[in-house]
Amino acid sequence: MDITVAIDAMGGDHGPRVTIPAALTLLKQDSELKVILVGLTVAIEAELRAQKAKPNPRMTIHHASELVLMDESPQSALKNKKDSSMRVAINLVKDGNADACVSAGNTGALMATARFVLKTLPGIDRPAIAGVLPSKVGMTHMLDLGANADCTPEHLLQFAIMGSVLVSCVRNKANPTVGLLNIGSEDIKGNEVVKQTAELLKSSHLNFYGNVEGDDIYKGTTDLVVCDGFVGNVALKTSEGLANLMGSFLKEEFKRSPITKLMALISMPVLSAFRKRLDPRCYNGASFLGLRGIVVKSHGGADVFAFKHAIIKAVDEARSGVLAHITEQLALEHTQSETSAKVAS
Amino acid sequence: MDITVAIDAMGGDHGPRVTIPAALTLLKQDSELKVILVGLTVAIEAELRAQKAKPNPRMTIHHASELVLMDESPQSALKNKKDSSMRVAINLVKDGNADACVSAGNTGALMATARFVLKTLPGIDRPAIAGVLPSKVGMTHMLDLGANADCTPEHLLQFAIMGSVLVSCVRNKANPTVGLLNIGSEDIKGNEVVKQTAELLKSSHLNFYGNVEGDDIYKGTTDLVVCDGFVGNVALKTSEGLANLMGSFLKEEFKRSPITKLMALISMPVLSAFRKRLDPRCYNGASFLGLRGIVVKSHGGADVFAFKHAIIKAVDEARSGVLAHITEQLALEHTQSETSAKVAS
Repeated sequence: MDITVAIDAMGGDHGPRVTIPAALTLLKQDSELKVILVGLTVAIEAELRAQKAKPNPRMTIHHASELVLMDESPQSALKNKKDSSMRVAINLVKDGNADACVSAGNTGALMATARFVLKTLPGIDRPAIAGVLPSKVGMTHMLDLGANADCTPEHLLQFAIMGSVLVSCVRNKANPTVGLLNIGSEDIKGNEVVKQTAELLKSSHLNFYGNVEGDDIYKGTTDLVVCDGFVGNVALKTSEGLANLMGSFLKEEFKRSPITKLMALISMPVLSAFRKRLDPRCYNGASFLGLRGIVVKSHGGADVFAFKHAIIKAVDEARSGVLAHITEQLALEHTQSETSAKVAS
Repeated sequence: MDITVAIDAMGGDHGPRVTIPAALTLLKQDSELKVILVGLTVAIEAELRAQKAKPNPRMTIHHASELVLMDESPQSALKNKKDSSMRVAINLVKDGNADACVSAGNTGALMATARFVLKTLPGIDRPAIAGVLPSKVGMTHMLDLGANADCTPEHLLQFAIMGSVLVSCVRNKANPTVGLLNIGSEDIKGNEVVKQTAELLKSSHLNFYGNVEGDDIYKGTTDLVVCDGFVGNVALKTSEGLANLMGSFLKEEFKRSPITKLMALISMPVLSAFRKRLDPRCYNGASFLGLRGIVVKSHGGADVFAFKHAIIKAVDEARSGVLAHITEQLALEHTQSETSAKVAS
């Protein structure tokens, strides 16, 4: 199935030096992929020359004259950068010229622009950021990872519906299990919002497992973990911090003396295999769910390998029809809640 | 300085088999320590015989006829277990017969009982749970780790005051830096409670660093990280989950084949040093702050080494006069806020 992805070629810490080689690699691997490279034509052409890329009918350049800076405020990006590579890539999705877009740019600006240009799906109050983390049994999807610091139970229910559809589409898993992130497994645990959310989830069509705790994310207790953006972001950043600490402690111990350095050399194949299993680059790409279009945010510091994974995520979402399925599921939940309201009245 | 610690000998997954050897070890190491072993006299005496412990004037047994079960509700423990080892140990603190108590029992029951028996300090609405985590530069203290799922800015300010005093006392560090856990470093980030808390912290006597993110906990950006009990518990449990995942991946890779097993054997000294640096047993013991007495909660599954560390924590807090210093600091903040209120009016 042909899929066209608009790529914000200028976004991220490295811009075209990363985004373009990633696109070129994936074009070779996926013969049904088309890409639109969005950004300063001169910069894009220079990188294509540097990569010795041949003309490809599946690759086009779409000029955009401006750039959103990595530390620019969302308001400034929205107001002053109407021809930014980020915004033009999103416009291509809105106008139906692309099935999805990917950017490694400024998260706040990307979310604000995507929301302004694409609008939210019917039945969705706020878009959320969904990501994937490794687990003992495969991987765990999680949302919201930081778009919404204050959430109501209704918002969390909407996140659960969208996340559940995402997992069933991209993981090809019917009826994925949904866990509600809490500080204990019992019903009485947690804050008021979480307690009320549990009630909503119980009476939904979702395969609600119940409360899960922080360690369940990495145990893989459920396919999906739902939480507000404050808690989700703290869990994600805390994990990054701990993984870095453990990595640097391991490195320090292996570098302590000539003997330990020799041990490191001998164990290299195992250490590489270990690193590979947890390689965050394989999990790169956060999905902005709840918009009338597919937008995937890559880590700003992504390298070519990582950025390629973010594009793959966008392609998978477009190919599996995530948007249409979210809309259907939202309509289903809406009908159900109306029916229960009528029965109750 | 002589310190008497009341030990809930029956608490935790292993009861006297862990608590008593830990107490005996520490009695040998700390000649100014006295312990009161609280619980079923027959069970305690049996374990002392098994350990071939000689009579010691610094060790006494205090009989308590009941046990709080690990899954018992706080309400049931409070109402039905008035002669539990946990409650009697807390009573010993209240009556001035012990300077601190340590329990590896049920967290909810311990907190409810401690709060009921000891009451909170003047100026403290709710006690919080403080813990310690490893960081790149040493260790980071953090609270609340789960006692309070819903917090107001005033609660978080109280946590910051108590945590700051704890760090300055037990780490002997004047004016420790305080970070407010948030989802971005800018002032505009976060939910309403966090934004208001930042204002309170700015106008306090504390050495407020500003907002920190999840990864700052392990970077050691600040000496203390303050957050509500929901977020703190999620961060803690998520960390446990990730550390377990990384540990089990490393083990799996080293066990993959006879060759990798040989590599593990060769690298053993490095792997042991690595494990030792992150050994959660060294960080065992969470302090219940805000009560009119020192209560330290050990992990339920603690072994002898870990439980000994929890007792050490209680001893350190008692010896450094944490309670008196918290009371002083609270009075100081109270006077200041009254003065500012007068100036403002």
